[in-house]
Amino acid sequence: MFGAGRIAEVHARSVAATEEVELAYVIDVDESRAQTLAQRYGAKVGSQDQVLNDVSVGAVIIASPTSTHADLVEVSARAGKAIFCEKPIDLNLDRVKQCLKTVREHGVLFALGFMRRFDPTYRDLYVRLRAGEIGEIEQISIVNRDLSPPHLDFIGTSGGMVRDLTSHDLDLARWLLGEEIHSVYAVGSCLIDPEIGKRGDIDSLQASLTTASGKLVQISESRRSAYGYDQRIEVMGSHGTLQAANKLQSLVVHGGSAGATQARPVSWFLERYADAYKAQLQDFAEAVRTERAPLVGAADGLRAVELTEAALKSMRTGSHVIVDEAD
Amino acid sequence: MFGAGRIAEVHARSVAATEEVELAYVIDVDESRAQTLAQRYGAKVGSQDQVLNDVSVGAVIIASPTSTHADLVEVSARAGKAIFCEKPIDLNLDRVKQCLKTVREHGVLFALGFMRRFDPTYRDLYVRLRAGEIGEIEQISIVNRDLSPPHLDFIGTSGGMVRDLTSHDLDLARWLLGEEIHSVYAVGSCLIDPEIGKRGDIDSLQASLTTASGKLVQISESRRSAYGYDQRIEVMGSHGTLQAANKLQSLVVHGGSAGATQARPVSWFLERYADAYKAQLQDFAEAVRTERAPLVGAADGLRAVELTEAALKSMRTGSHVIVDEAD
Amino acid sequence: MFGAGRIAEVHARSVAATEEVELAYVIDVDESRAQTLAQRYGAKVGSQDQVLNDVSVGAVIIASPTSTHADLVEVSARAGKAIFCEKPIDLNLDRVKQCLKTVREHGVLFALGFMRRFDPTYRDLYVRLRAGEIGEIEQISIVNRDLSPPHLDFIGTSGGMVRDLTSHDLDLARWLLGEEIHSVYAVGSCLIDPEIGKRGDIDSLQASLTTASGKLVQISESRRSAYGYDQRIEVMGSHGTLQAANKLQSLVVHGGSAGATQARPVSWFLERYADAYKAQLQDFAEAVRTERAPLVGAADGLRAVELTEAALKSMRTGSHVIVDEAD
Amino acid sequence: MFGAGRIAEVHARSVAATEEVELAYVIDVDESRAQTLAQRYGAKVGSQDQVLNDVSVGAVIIASPTSTHADLVEVSARAGKAIFCEKPIDLNLDRVKQCLKTVREHGVLFALGFMRRFDPTYRDLYVRLRAGEIGEIEQISIVNRDLSPPHLDFIGTSGGMVRDLTSHDLDLARWLLGEEIHSVYAVGSCLIDPEIGKRGDIDSLQASLTTASGKLVQISESRRSAYGYDQRIEVMGSHGTLQAANKLQSLVVHGGSAGATQARPVSWFLERYADAYKAQLQDFAEAVRTERAPLVGAADGLRAVELTEAALKSMRTGSHVIVDEAD
Repeated sequence: MFGAGRIAEVHARSVAATEEVELAYVIDVDESRAQTLAQRYGAKVGSQDQVLNDVSVGAVIIASPTSTHADLVEVSARAGKAIFCEKPIDLNLDRVKQCLKTVREHGVLFALGFMRRFDPTYRDLYVRLRAGEIGEIEQISIVNRDLSPPHLDFIGTSGGMVRDLTSHDLDLARWLLGEEIHSVYAVGSCLIDPEIGKRGDIDSLQASLTTASGKLVQISESRRSAYGYDQRIEVMGSHGTLQAANKLQSLVVHGGSAGATQARPVSWFLERYADAYKAQLQDFAEAVRTERAPLVGAADGLRAVELTEAALKSMRTGSHVIVDEAD
Repeated sequence: MFGAGRIAEVHARSVAATEEVELAYVIDVDESRAQTLAQRYGAKVGSQDQVLNDVSVGAVIIASPTSTHADLVEVSARAGKAIFCEKPIDLNLDRVKQCLKTVREHGVLFALGFMRRFDPTYRDLYVRLRAGEIGEIEQISIVNRDLSPPHLDFIGTSGGMVRDLTSHDLDLARWLLGEEIHSVYAVGSCLIDPEIGKRGDIDSLQASLTTASGKLVQISESRRSAYGYDQRIEVMGSHGTLQAANKLQSLVVHGGSAGATQARPVSWFLERYADAYKAQLQDFAEAVRTERAPLVGAADGLRAVELTEAALKSMRTGSHVIVDEAD
Repeated sequence: MFGAGRIAEVHARSVAATEEVELAYVIDVDESRAQTLAQRYGAKVGSQDQVLNDVSVGAVIIASPTSTHADLVEVSARAGKAIFCEKPIDLNLDRVKQCLKTVREHGVLFALGFMRRFDPTYRDLYVRLRAGEIGEIEQISIVNRDLSPPHLDFIGTSGGMVRDLTSHDLDLARWLLGEEIHSVYAVGSCLIDPEIGKRGDIDSLQASLTTASGKLVQISESRRSAYGYDQRIEVMGSHGTLQAANKLQSLVVHGGSAGATQARPVSWFLERYADAYKAQLQDFAEAVRTERAPLVGAADGLRAVELTEAALKSMRTGSHVIVDEAD
Repeated sequence: MFGAGRIAEVHARSVAATEEVELAYVIDVDESRAQTLAQRYGAKVGSQDQVLNDVSVGAVIIASPTSTHADLVEVSARAGKAIFCEKPIDLNLDRVKQCLKTVREHGVLFALGFMRRFDPTYRDLYVRLRAGEIGEIEQISIVNRDLSPPHLDFIGTSGGMVRDLTSHDLDLARWLLGEEIHSVYAVGSCLIDPEIGKRGDIDSLQASLTTASGKLVQISESRRSAYGYDQRIEVMGSHGTLQAANKLQSLVVHGGSAGATQARPVSWFLERYADAYKAQLQDFAEAVRTERAPLVGAADGLRAVELTEAALKSMRTGSHVIVDEAD
């Protein structure tokens, strides 16, 4: 486990819940933090060399800061380890390509952390779409609204809202469509906190995508949602719709003088996607064990960065950007 | 039109909206009230004799106080008029029987004001039940909760909550079941206003009914509902359920920090059953015109009083009361 | 009443339901159709000259084919009549401007038929937005999906889906925002019926709008909706959301082995917007009577055409189009 | 662990998920079944004497057939073990009293398996009721409908539907009310399978309860629900309602020509109450560790049997049964 922060802890817990997998080492620049995590999950604190040279280590989980991902992917690939890498591989498209070339050359298994694809609700949606329950897909609408904006310090290191948030939805769109994105239009605003704007970022976004066959996708994102973490997807097809509703905090409904009130959605991604994180790690473990491809791989990571860059370019130019499929 | 009060106004409006029917006379002890209503709907104020002797009058609507219903039914029957009578015919079972005997003897058409049966939602429910959409009916649950208790003066004249409110649900139950009630258990409480209890009435009630074939019906009533006029029906059958939901004040849903809130139900029976009142009068008019039986007739009125009396007896004794079907 | 077709009949019914207004003449190229409508609503068949010269006629309703709107507006304005005109005024922007100049010069009252603004659900939404119930508006999502495509003959005369359908949503967006649209991006596809494409039209559309202050609006439209006429609006603000839900055919919910099923939405605009059509005519009548401005006027009609043209241009170029506010 | 059947497996899993508790022995008449369960959870197969004499065993879980509960409770109490016992303690009221006297005399901790009280949804409901969110409770409605009837062999050994199913709802009613039941009326039918009737049991039931202060409770039960395992509770108070909705199999909603369909409820108690079973065992473990009373104790078990017997008596006599509180 590279990293010992919040998301590393999530993966460590998933490892503990997965059969036939054991957490061996935790590596972090903050040694005491590494120590705490290692102890909690029965692992040792190790150095990078130690881990990569340990032949009993079959796979690495890269959950360190984004700026370290690409380097760690490359050294791990050279050491022949299977790799699970948090998204994004890198903020720079060329660096991503280079990095994945190294992965390919060393023939190691590579899985990327788009955990939303493992959410039971979205999987149910996906399976029913593929089964043809609503015929041919025509339009998709994705809503992705955080409860409240991240700490301002995060704005700088995150690469901005499009790389941090929109990349997830671009990946979801490709996956649900079963078809590549052809054009990307995006427009953003700073409506919530002017400080975000001063740092060159946005806090509200809309995107409009098309596929080569003319399917249409809408994305609506916000850094703040006064009514709870909002994660809805609606797919309209030739024979009907399928909607993935929010997961609510309680099944109790209150009836009062203002009307009937349902509980609000759960508050953030770690609660909403708790099952998804577990399923994602299990998929990785099974992929390593059975030598099959993981559900989200290198090509998905590359495509996400390409689409993210296209969205950023569209926001700058006011025109939609055609994304070359043969890339 | 006998009566010129609130419910008479409702019927007058329905008459105006019904083709081939015209309001000729309004009769009320309060002449000025009669005058107002008559003027608004293009009618005259008349005396009882005048109306009953006027051969151009084919039908009467009895919307005067309950204590006058039976007498007016009888004189109208003797005058050969078709009769629409607000429920109940009378609070006394023997008087009801006597009165309906007179109706039968003079062979006039008689319709009773159980307007709930004409509500579009309940009619949809009824039609689908009869079409077998949920197989054999097994259990019915009826919720009937007013927004707030009636004026204390009304408590005395109404004959009490069971005669005023429960009679409607007993009629609905019979109608939806398509089968007669066999046993009636009822229990009441005074939970809302002790003044109601001091006048010998209750404000909260539960009833449990059975049919000869073993079908089960639950009724839950209250004189107060802090969350709006609550009028739900749920029917469970061998193959599924059908639920009649409340009619809401608006289709706008608010999402806030407490969760998503629907509008509350409309506030009272005149709003909830506005369409029902219109359809009821149209049914009466059509029945008179085509000489067919109205949808709710004399036998339904008699049965409602019998069941109401059974509920009252059950409340006194703590035992369910078997209602003789051959009555 | 100019016109005697389907929408003319709707307006004739609304006139009949509005106090202090009477339908005097019906004018249509198809005389027998004009005769039928006139007879049903107690009017005469008249010629254009007769109507415009009749001083007892205070107002005209233009419900004839689109190509005749601008001419009829101009002759009516010159005759000093108050004008209610079905949208659009004309498919050509210059013609619209010229026509409205004539209206202005003759100082007659002019109302435009964007009936959606009069829908009780949308009005509730509007009132609550203006009351600040969800704080500052940030994002709006409008879904507008017809049950099934119009007859192919209509495709040619309608001016296409953007002029026919999108114009309504562009007007709704302006009205709900309380702020002018600044940029318009639109993209369309032909996914439902290739014959529509062959006639140069689309059947599926997405639009993304912004205001000068950065508010974002998404529109999703389709000519076919397998699950019923879909007319939803969702407004997200700094303090919460307000959603306008579909009007369902029944309040009865079925529970079966597949789950709980609500009734589907009502099937088409004449049913969904029945109340809106009535309220629209009442607003026009009241505006004429009290010499106030109607709720939807000439400026709204002009702006709708400008935005519609912008959407068409965006679809051709792939870039968003900045709409000059000072137009 | 006494017993190695289905419910014993559930408890064994909960033990494994509870910190500071370890499963030591499994005891069952079917040795191979005991062996399987013991192996899976790292325990040994033991004899009754061995277990009760082992001082390292602090607590026993009684999950064997109902007929063995009372005896096992007594020998465990005499051995000084803390006791978790599946409900019911015994089908005979006198035997229950005798058994609990033994428990009292030996001063051991005793917890009863009414797992519904530990369900997160019901706990949320309970906490909000106690916090006064809807004011004074006036009416409660409990719906408890199994997906399909149990195996006919079970009908005989279960003590019948009232003891098997209704006992849960009687306990829920007491708990939610925060007040004792005063009167019990119940009526049952055999509507689903005549074979159940031939074995002297019912498959459909309605009960109507009151408290001394006049609060009203309705229970509706069935052995079959064509639309999924139905477990709803609705509490109406002076200021509003609180409803506990069913847990659905998926958050995906399908929209088709028949309308919008939610997923159906999860199919049976082991899925619906999975969290409840875990929380129940954790409560027991914590009660033993901290020497506090468990949330559901001996008095609750006794009261449940008293109320169950009252319901059975009411079904025989047609009268409600007054339940003496000083018992």
